[in-house]
Amino acid sequence: MSHNSFGHLFRVTTWGESHGPALGCVVDGCPPGIGLTAEEIQVWLDKRRPGQGKFVTQRQEPDAVRILSGVFQDDRTNGQVTTGTPISLQIENVDQRSKDYGEIAQAFRPGHADYAYFAKYGVRDYRGGGRASARETAARVAAGAVARKILEGVTIRAAVVQIGPHAIDRSRFDWDQTEQNPFWCPDAQTVAVWEEHLEKVRKAGSSTGAIVEVEAVGVPPGWGAPIYGKLDAELAAALMSINAAKGVEIGAGFASAAFSGEENADEMRAGNDGPLFLSNSAGGVLGGISTGQPVVARVAFKPTSSILTLRRSLNEAGEEVDLRTKGRHDPCVGIRAVPVVEAMTACVLADAFLRHRAQTGGGAFAPGRHERD
Amino acid sequence: MSHNSFGHLFRVTTWGESHGPALGCVVDGCPPGIGLTAEEIQVWLDKRRPGQGKFVTQRQEPDAVRILSGVFQDDRTNGQVTTGTPISLQIENVDQRSKDYGEIAQAFRPGHADYAYFAKYGVRDYRGGGRASARETAARVAAGAVARKILEGVTIRAAVVQIGPHAIDRSRFDWDQTEQNPFWCPDAQTVAVWEEHLEKVRKAGSSTGAIVEVEAVGVPPGWGAPIYGKLDAELAAALMSINAAKGVEIGAGFASAAFSGEENADEMRAGNDGPLFLSNSAGGVLGGISTGQPVVARVAFKPTSSILTLRRSLNEAGEEVDLRTKGRHDPCVGIRAVPVVEAMTACVLADAFLRHRAQTGGGAFAPGRHERD
Amino acid sequence: MSHNSFGHLFRVTTWGESHGPALGCVVDGCPPGIGLTAEEIQVWLDKRRPGQGKFVTQRQEPDAVRILSGVFQDDRTNGQVTTGTPISLQIENVDQRSKDYGEIAQAFRPGHADYAYFAKYGVRDYRGGGRASARETAARVAAGAVARKILEGVTIRAAVVQIGPHAIDRSRFDWDQTEQNPFWCPDAQTVAVWEEHLEKVRKAGSSTGAIVEVEAVGVPPGWGAPIYGKLDAELAAALMSINAAKGVEIGAGFASAAFSGEENADEMRAGNDGPLFLSNSAGGVLGGISTGQPVVARVAFKPTSSILTLRRSLNEAGEEVDLRTKGRHDPCVGIRAVPVVEAMTACVLADAFLRHRAQTGGGAFAPGRHERD
Amino acid sequence: MSHNSFGHLFRVTTWGESHGPALGCVVDGCPPGIGLTAEEIQVWLDKRRPGQGKFVTQRQEPDAVRILSGVFQDDRTNGQVTTGTPISLQIENVDQRSKDYGEIAQAFRPGHADYAYFAKYGVRDYRGGGRASARETAARVAAGAVARKILEGVTIRAAVVQIGPHAIDRSRFDWDQTEQNPFWCPDAQTVAVWEEHLEKVRKAGSSTGAIVEVEAVGVPPGWGAPIYGKLDAELAAALMSINAAKGVEIGAGFASAAFSGEENADEMRAGNDGPLFLSNSAGGVLGGISTGQPVVARVAFKPTSSILTLRRSLNEAGEEVDLRTKGRHDPCVGIRAVPVVEAMTACVLADAFLRHRAQTGGGAFAPGRHERD
Repeated sequence: MSHNSFGHLFRVTTWGESHGPALGCVVDGCPPGIGLTAEEIQVWLDKRRPGQGKFVTQRQEPDAVRILSGVFQDDRTNGQVTTGTPISLQIENVDQRSKDYGEIAQAFRPGHADYAYFAKYGVRDYRGGGRASARETAARVAAGAVARKILEGVTIRAAVVQIGPHAIDRSRFDWDQTEQNPFWCPDAQTVAVWEEHLEKVRKAGSSTGAIVEVEAVGVPPGWGAPIYGKLDAELAAALMSINAAKGVEIGAGFASAAFSGEENADEMRAGNDGPLFLSNSAGGVLGGISTGQPVVARVAFKPTSSILTLRRSLNEAGEEVDLRTKGRHDPCVGIRAVPVVEAMTACVLADAFLRHRAQTGGGAFAPGRHERD
Repeated sequence: MSHNSFGHLFRVTTWGESHGPALGCVVDGCPPGIGLTAEEIQVWLDKRRPGQGKFVTQRQEPDAVRILSGVFQDDRTNGQVTTGTPISLQIENVDQRSKDYGEIAQAFRPGHADYAYFAKYGVRDYRGGGRASARETAARVAAGAVARKILEGVTIRAAVVQIGPHAIDRSRFDWDQTEQNPFWCPDAQTVAVWEEHLEKVRKAGSSTGAIVEVEAVGVPPGWGAPIYGKLDAELAAALMSINAAKGVEIGAGFASAAFSGEENADEMRAGNDGPLFLSNSAGGVLGGISTGQPVVARVAFKPTSSILTLRRSLNEAGEEVDLRTKGRHDPCVGIRAVPVVEAMTACVLADAFLRHRAQTGGGAFAPGRHERD
Repeated sequence: MSHNSFGHLFRVTTWGESHGPALGCVVDGCPPGIGLTAEEIQVWLDKRRPGQGKFVTQRQEPDAVRILSGVFQDDRTNGQVTTGTPISLQIENVDQRSKDYGEIAQAFRPGHADYAYFAKYGVRDYRGGGRASARETAARVAAGAVARKILEGVTIRAAVVQIGPHAIDRSRFDWDQTEQNPFWCPDAQTVAVWEEHLEKVRKAGSSTGAIVEVEAVGVPPGWGAPIYGKLDAELAAALMSINAAKGVEIGAGFASAAFSGEENADEMRAGNDGPLFLSNSAGGVLGGISTGQPVVARVAFKPTSSILTLRRSLNEAGEEVDLRTKGRHDPCVGIRAVPVVEAMTACVLADAFLRHRAQTGGGAFAPGRHERD
Repeated sequence: MSHNSFGHLFRVTTWGESHGPALGCVVDGCPPGIGLTAEEIQVWLDKRRPGQGKFVTQRQEPDAVRILSGVFQDDRTNGQVTTGTPISLQIENVDQRSKDYGEIAQAFRPGHADYAYFAKYGVRDYRGGGRASARETAARVAAGAVARKILEGVTIRAAVVQIGPHAIDRSRFDWDQTEQNPFWCPDAQTVAVWEEHLEKVRKAGSSTGAIVEVEAVGVPPGWGAPIYGKLDAELAAALMSINAAKGVEIGAGFASAAFSGEENADEMRAGNDGPLFLSNSAGGVLGGISTGQPVVARVAFKPTSSILTLRRSLNEAGEEVDLRTKGRHDPCVGIRAVPVVEAMTACVLADAFLRHRAQTGGGAFAPGRHERD
């Protein structure tokens, strides 16, 4: 319910501003007895970390996470495990550089949350975007790392499938490629196109949008719940809450508007482990409940609003100003969103798993069987 | 939190199956002293009502709503007003025709929620889709009618902007046209195209998808809240929870992925009542908070899954079956979704308004002023 | 979160006023596949029903419950079972007699919610107390009947242990006695004392308070959760929300303030099924989590506020008035609260069971074992 | 919803174990623009701090609080104010002494949460009680300090009114006295009695219970909401969630069970500012809504479970053990609960204020007026 929390049973509360002393999250509702170390969380934070290439912000943050509560040594295994109590994760801000904000302190950067925060609250932490900064997503990634530990058997991975006007060729989609280039691009031949595009954008002091696709394989049937707890509705909210997200689609998404009924409805045959679907327009979700197919979603990210071009705006005094946004910004915020999209998907799925287990005891009915697996 | 409720302070809980005796909702948290009659709610239900044309289901349901609680006569005005207690709204199902379900009772219709419900619950009300039926949306429309009464000064309206592959010409967008044709089409010249397309689809026993656009004008700045209570995240969840929805976008949405930073960030000049935005790529929301511009969203609807074409599937016994879905179905469920999209938008906005008033007392800061309006 | 809902996973939303057309509730989150008929719910409503003796209100309400959604015939058993979708339960109001409210319509009855509702909402349904009427508790009892079906192996029963200044003699406590007298009195020798006291109270046009004790036997260890979801904290809220409740205690409760540490802490020995506690000062809850001992709570009810004695008050115009409250009232509202206390306890426990199953998969660790049972 | 959060709009999430590196809370939903410094919070923490006398634990904790987020310098006043974003408060644990836990690490201390945590989670942080330690209440007190800043015009204060079997004489109740003795005792003549009792208890290695009374003066009419969001139900949950609490009562509480209707219902006359109540049996709450009278509640605390007397128990292996609990413990945990009771009351009231403002805009109707104040 509160503004800075999400999830129902696997519940994450984040806090912190871009230039405050630290940021973090509290993960509540995690099952007990699950192995969890700071190192396991760090892996995912490192994936999101800024300062790793010329197409992402040059701010240098180690993003070292500490676990302040909720874990203890298990006498039986000697490993560190969750205790079922709230897990407090904390990351210090190190490289703030907030000495001089100049006109930004008083003016509203177009496309940013500056004006909206001012209008709502009357006061705002203007340093680096304050609470609206993408630094907040580090806390999401940390929480997502915990969620992954709960989701045994589920693989979650994301890729960038479009940067600016340049979409990948889906016939060349290869997940292995995503680790081979700085753009999480699954199509080897598109990498050069994006590199050129981004170089041009960067030199122009401009920015560009992107589309990220996420896939969760191994989600069993039965997760999610009608009507307002639909798995796709929860995913939509979680993904749309990411900074700069402007659209979310599931399965065929917007393309399905142009489909015929025959193209849309995925047919089924009998497989070895329940139904074998012959296509996946649904993106793994029907009636808000997972079907056992891969859960597939895409998120559209707008271009970074911070650009060097002079733009017309207002300041807090109501005067018209022209301003350009200097600083260390990603020209394409969509690239660094990849681990964030994965993390939010993991959190939504962990929550759905717990809710499903609560109502039904877990498992699913398979056609031809009258028992829950 | 519960599966069949949405909203935080303006909270709607719906119940009922397609072929049960009735369906309805409980609206909790409504402010007191607001005039409300069944007739005012009926207006919006009539807009959604089935049986009104050859391109929508022929099921005949009067959808007459009763208010069972939460209103009382105001001694001072003699009008019926809300009392602040829960408003129970109920609609009887009249035209169920559920005598014979034949193979549908045991088989999973492709593209429907049948299999997912079976897998999750092990038991399902197969009559007319049970809880997963679009009849449930009548309860949403009723709740939306209450929400509209709270949203004084806010106008919410939706239109269909694409059916199948045929999008409107946005240069001809005219809201007045939406009331002049059975498709809520805002582009007079596209009506004939859609009519022809739908006629073909209907004759083929097939179906088609659609895109609905909704706009809320008059939303003041300041509604919505970071980070997980973002207005666009709440909208995304609410709209994605509508039957057959597969995608949601805000403002420029997926198109913004191809934008440059200059195209994306809406510039501002000083207007008479706060900032004057020179464009609306943001769709009225920045950082999850309304800016005072129109809030604009679009929802993609997949084609109706019930089609007459023979399709491969399974039954509950795990046997492969081929089945066609007879019955009274909308060839394009997106058309009848228009009032539902409006209603969900109204509910989200009413909730955002109450949450904003809770935290801040209401109103907004305007540039140049140091007081909340 | 909403005002008229309680529970987290087993979530109950009630609606309705004393003299409206009907009242009811929506039970969301119920597990699927649980046998449930209207007759099973009716049993508990009949226990609460008014018009059953001279010491309870003479209003005649059949309180016949209808299940409007959420159940379906199970093909395998032919019995009616829950489907996992929201269960809408409805009870018509039949014997309202709301023709003439005279001065009550404008004046605030001392001890009633009249003034508080007026101050908060500015409008109130004054007929029979409107939403604040004890009639609302019928919906709680209906929901509690559903909760009981989930709680296999748990027995919940309540008794009146004090009426006015007359407490039972606990050495004579006999649960079987509670069904033998109209006061749910577990001490046969106290019945006559209460009868005499109530007769005196009734003739004087006065009323009297009472204390109800509830016990849940068979609750396994592990239900409830630190820190703010403690089983006893949830129980306290649920029981305090009952009309006229003014106090709640768990186990030894207020008496434990006078205890020494030795008297308070229940010792343990090894039993056949986990620990054997040598006393139950804790009332079955330690650290907010059930221990496997009976969960024991007591609720204090104030006297019915509606009395025939002339009392000083105000009316809505702000004028001083003297008024007496005629009508059909229970002289001791605590008596009819017995099934309500049971129902609220059942709902809290069903919710705790589902939450426990969500986080841990269910079951508990027993000393000496390293597996969850 | 989550286990370690409370409140709806003013929402507090706490985390941390007794012997972890730190503990803290996140306060979400705080209105913006409210002056808040660490020093203002520290005042209340100092009141709760251990190591301040021979009747409280000798653990030395400075309990120095840091504000890690959610505040910023207000340009107009130069003071530090809340920004409306989550306020993260953190306290380091300094004096843990957790080297040797000996048999406590494996055995269940009677009366403690040890066994319940083990049964539920299968793993527990046994150092100092882990999450179940009263150290967690420092986070509550910090959150309560924020709540107080929101509650302008409301005074919240608590006192101990009974220790062991020794209750104060209410005719001598004097709030000023509570600051004059180490027991928060409002009755000067009872101080010596308690001192003697506690000395005896301490020497015996035993412990004793207590009752704390809290009063909130200045709460306007209208806060709280029917039916399950009743102000007294929320208070009951909040107070019962405090460590060692076993009972909660509002106003006359359990005593009202013995009242007659005439004694119970508080009469009203016309005052200068709305109704003048002639008594306060209701404890300031009717129908779950504040009446404008002081809100009065009492909480019963059981004796500290850690005592030096040898007690029968079990260990994790299921073996019977006899153990005594050495360590630094309060002989009467109720004394140090005073600032915690105040803090929880403040949090509940701040939440009720925000919820009331959300639904109604704030203010109340006074008799004779047709406008909200």
